[in-house]
Amino acid sequence: MRVGIVGLGLIGGSFAKAYHESKDWEVYGMDSDKRILDLALLAEDLDGVLDETTISQCDLLLIALYPQAVIEYLEKNAPYISKDTVVIDCGGTKRKICEAGFQIAEKYGFTFIGGHPMAGRHYTGYKYSLANLYDGMAMVIIPKTCDDMNWLEHIKDLLKPARFGTVTVTTAENHDKMIAFTSQLAHVVSNAYIKSPTAREHHGYSAGSYKDLTRVAWLNEVMWTELFMENRDYLTEEIRFLREELKKYQNALEQQDFEKMRELLREGKERKVEVDGR
Amino acid sequence: MRVGIVGLGLIGGSFAKAYHESKDWEVYGMDSDKRILDLALLAEDLDGVLDETTISQCDLLLIALYPQAVIEYLEKNAPYISKDTVVIDCGGTKRKICEAGFQIAEKYGFTFIGGHPMAGRHYTGYKYSLANLYDGMAMVIIPKTCDDMNWLEHIKDLLKPARFGTVTVTTAENHDKMIAFTSQLAHVVSNAYIKSPTAREHHGYSAGSYKDLTRVAWLNEVMWTELFMENRDYLTEEIRFLREELKKYQNALEQQDFEKMRELLREGKERKVEVDGR
Repeated sequence: MRVGIVGLGLIGGSFAKAYHESKDWEVYGMDSDKRILDLALLAEDLDGVLDETTISQCDLLLIALYPQAVIEYLEKNAPYISKDTVVIDCGGTKRKICEAGFQIAEKYGFTFIGGHPMAGRHYTGYKYSLANLYDGMAMVIIPKTCDDMNWLEHIKDLLKPARFGTVTVTTAENHDKMIAFTSQLAHVVSNAYIKSPTAREHHGYSAGSYKDLTRVAWLNEVMWTELFMENRDYLTEEIRFLREELKKYQNALEQQDFEKMRELLREGKERKVEVDGR
Repeated sequence: MRVGIVGLGLIGGSFAKAYHESKDWEVYGMDSDKRILDLALLAEDLDGVLDETTISQCDLLLIALYPQAVIEYLEKNAPYISKDTVVIDCGGTKRKICEAGFQIAEKYGFTFIGGHPMAGRHYTGYKYSLANLYDGMAMVIIPKTCDDMNWLEHIKDLLKPARFGTVTVTTAENHDKMIAFTSQLAHVVSNAYIKSPTAREHHGYSAGSYKDLTRVAWLNEVMWTELFMENRDYLTEEIRFLREELKKYQNALEQQDFEKMRELLREGKERKVEVDGR
């Protein structure tokens, strides 16, 4: 089996290393930065370069670029992709990519599937990529239709070397709605939280909760701006909702309403148990 | 040496276990729940019960109760406390407790110091307490005056069995301001975050950032309401500030202002590096 990997950043690099560990697979890679490609070749994480020839021999093509670049890549390279190839992208938002991907795939006869590996690290780039980044993590896939269970099993088989814990099948709409809450809102809140003037003096006064709330404050602002803007309807709604919820706590404090504060906190506590168990 | 511990919850229980591991110390404990006290005695975490007799023999008295209960305890038991005893409370807010504590201590001749061990666990209660809960963590102490370095060294010596990583000396005002940001705001945000209707369907779509943002959503609403209300000036200010910051991201999304969004995210990223390093 052969996998082609486009974009050797944290995500693509980790796929390259994971598939390379699997004896059944040959790994072909490509990166717009020649130094990164050379590094991956020298590190022997790749079996070769993904080019117009090798791309046509791939059973699986994983595209790990920013959303807009995924579409541009597909538009340019679709003519070289075999009809037997399954193409999965790894972009953090899915509506725009899937719409374009499904269209291009239909035109050229290959299969496109939207994908989002739910894994990351604090740092980006090939040098931080790990063969076990996806171990036990969640993978979301968005096929054009999902009425053929055997075919979905085939897709899951293709993803096996990454060792995901779960593979969830959904729509682009639902993915984008969920991700606005689970990931994008978390990054916005964390990035905003750290801006309090009090943050500058926190040393000696902080434990786990500060650490958790600010862990993802450091982020790649170019990538996240693109992801946020593509998902601005859902993300705006989540920020608006959170701001309104926070206002309730603020009101309870300002009105010294003990009963209301206990109620607000109890509601959050109960929701946490309902959603995640204890 | 003898330590008395009032309140055998997570905090007091962990102190009892830590001091009990130190051969130089005898540990006397008290809890308003007789079953918890019996449990601690049966588990041999205590050398005896803290009562009107043993309290007078303590070198150190650690009070691990809710803020209001700390003051009530001191008012009732001050007559039994020896002039040689150092009393440290463990409440999460410090202005009100320190004001009362310094006054009572002056009247009865013992030493009162406000304290806040910066450690916790997701769960509360004696059964979750750990001998190593404070290992390497931060302890904040608030003495009435801090002009005698030798005497501060003596206080640090008294705290040695807990094995804190740092002991920070500050004022009640500064403590409460810092804690509003590092701990209280984190709990409010986490508790509010989980209330998004989207939370109910997050399984399969979440990775570390969701987990981090909602870790402290589960909390003891009675204790935290008391802590929040005592610190409502500083906490209100932090919530207000965060809501305003979040509004900026919301505006950038609504106006599809890519440049502004990148700028907001870059600012947060740079602040994170400034505050915590990379």
